[in-house]
Amino acid sequence: MKTETTIQGLSASLSKARSSRKTIGFVPTMGNLHEGHLNLVREARNLCDVVVVSIFVNPIQFGPNEDFDSYPRTLDQDSQLLAEVGCDIVFAPSVEQMYGGQSRLTNISVSDITNDLCGAQRPGHFDGVAVIVTKLFNIVQPNFAFFGQKDYQQLAVIKQMVADLNMPIEVIGVPITRAEDGLALSSRNGYLSDEQRQTAPAIYKALKNAEAELKAGQALADVIANIKADLVANGFEIDYVEARTPMLQTIDQFDQDVVIFVAAKLGKTRLIDNIQVAFVV
Amino acid sequence: MKTETTIQGLSASLSKARSSRKTIGFVPTMGNLHEGHLNLVREARNLCDVVVVSIFVNPIQFGPNEDFDSYPRTLDQDSQLLAEVGCDIVFAPSVEQMYGGQSRLTNISVSDITNDLCGAQRPGHFDGVAVIVTKLFNIVQPNFAFFGQKDYQQLAVIKQMVADLNMPIEVIGVPITRAEDGLALSSRNGYLSDEQRQTAPAIYKALKNAEAELKAGQALADVIANIKADLVANGFEIDYVEARTPMLQTIDQFDQDVVIFVAAKLGKTRLIDNIQVAFVV
Repeated sequence: MKTETTIQGLSASLSKARSSRKTIGFVPTMGNLHEGHLNLVREARNLCDVVVVSIFVNPIQFGPNEDFDSYPRTLDQDSQLLAEVGCDIVFAPSVEQMYGGQSRLTNISVSDITNDLCGAQRPGHFDGVAVIVTKLFNIVQPNFAFFGQKDYQQLAVIKQMVADLNMPIEVIGVPITRAEDGLALSSRNGYLSDEQRQTAPAIYKALKNAEAELKAGQALADVIANIKADLVANGFEIDYVEARTPMLQTIDQFDQDVVIFVAAKLGKTRLIDNIQVAFVV
Repeated sequence: MKTETTIQGLSASLSKARSSRKTIGFVPTMGNLHEGHLNLVREARNLCDVVVVSIFVNPIQFGPNEDFDSYPRTLDQDSQLLAEVGCDIVFAPSVEQMYGGQSRLTNISVSDITNDLCGAQRPGHFDGVAVIVTKLFNIVQPNFAFFGQKDYQQLAVIKQMVADLNMPIEVIGVPITRAEDGLALSSRNGYLSDEQRQTAPAIYKALKNAEAELKAGQALADVIANIKADLVANGFEIDYVEARTPMLQTIDQFDQDVVIFVAAKLGKTRLIDNIQVAFVV
């Protein structure tokens, strides 16, 4: 496995793969890798000839009061994990490498589907994601790009952008990887105290319960209310509990496929999760 | 020469060139071609193995009161001219082909350098240009793209966007092509009456005069004032006469390379032109 820290170095490393028409699979990450990320890499490994993983904590997707400075940077450990799952090239550029040179004047923004859910609490977040993903796509020029369904809204935003701008890339969403107790894996889980970590799986339990209630015919509004009550009873501070179509349009009743989204805080740590429930006539 | 009207058809036409690693040169146009466009194509022909020219009148870069509906569409004549100068593929998609399917939610905007000159009079214009150029770049995936220096601000905006987003494309600016009497060639010149057409070269004469005055040591502000007086005396209604650095930053005196920009109307027809004057110590 090679590690490249410059755009030029990465391009040189990829030029042979490109000229021999090998398929390139790309997994963009912010590092501090867990099994969720590794499953994205395994999926890329299965589908593609060459697997590139980027590790870059992207400053422009963090708000002024968010955890950019304290976000965990664990490159050595990440590299070891990536080598074990068959990554070919790690791209770990500096902020200077990605945003140095001339002042950036170009912004990309996806409207409508970024206005609520995580977008409401994090103004500019998805613009920052759209810009860095576009830059990385243009640098790596992959055939396939892999994103986790845990950040479902992010996945939807990227799919929308790729379609709107005719980017020559297939975006693949990979199901959420969970701990044995059901907690969705996340780098931010490391911020939880032991006690909070014990409480955290209540999110997924509430979502599974909601799935069962929907299938049993309970009204969507009641199901959402039950999740909220459940989380509050477990000591969460709720950001949102929302039902949407798979393309993030609002939905009033369970008459088509639905995705239920939760964002809730335990202490200072914000956790997100979601569940997709298929509508069967 | 082939003509393709669908993205799929174009991709099929280009797949052989791509797999044999031929260089692709791309000239995006709105059709109604004149010698200025043909010089872009000749430049592409000189530098690249395969030359693609797009003809697409892009609705989203026109304002509500602009000339989208009346913009001249002359595909047959354009195709004949393109065949004569060695174009390999004409890409002439419909609006449906470029913007059909899902509603577009993604916008690209370049700040600062789009706020004045032509940007001040045409809100949203450069966003529309940035989006269509990005879409076409992603569809054609050229190695080189050719733009005229007549639309100097557009060229600067595209260069900025390409650099900011790490697009793997070299953007080449081609000098303005002029009629014998000095008028910069433009599809919109066709809107001029015979009398207006006689008057129009006064713009370039004023710019050449400004160049001589700068080289003779006259103050930049006086030179700009002289251009304005000259145009008003010739019956133009001035949109702007401005001096900028080559990267479109404002400039007070002739102590570095300067570009002087003119936009002025004759009747309803808006003409633009510019001249670059190198600073020699």
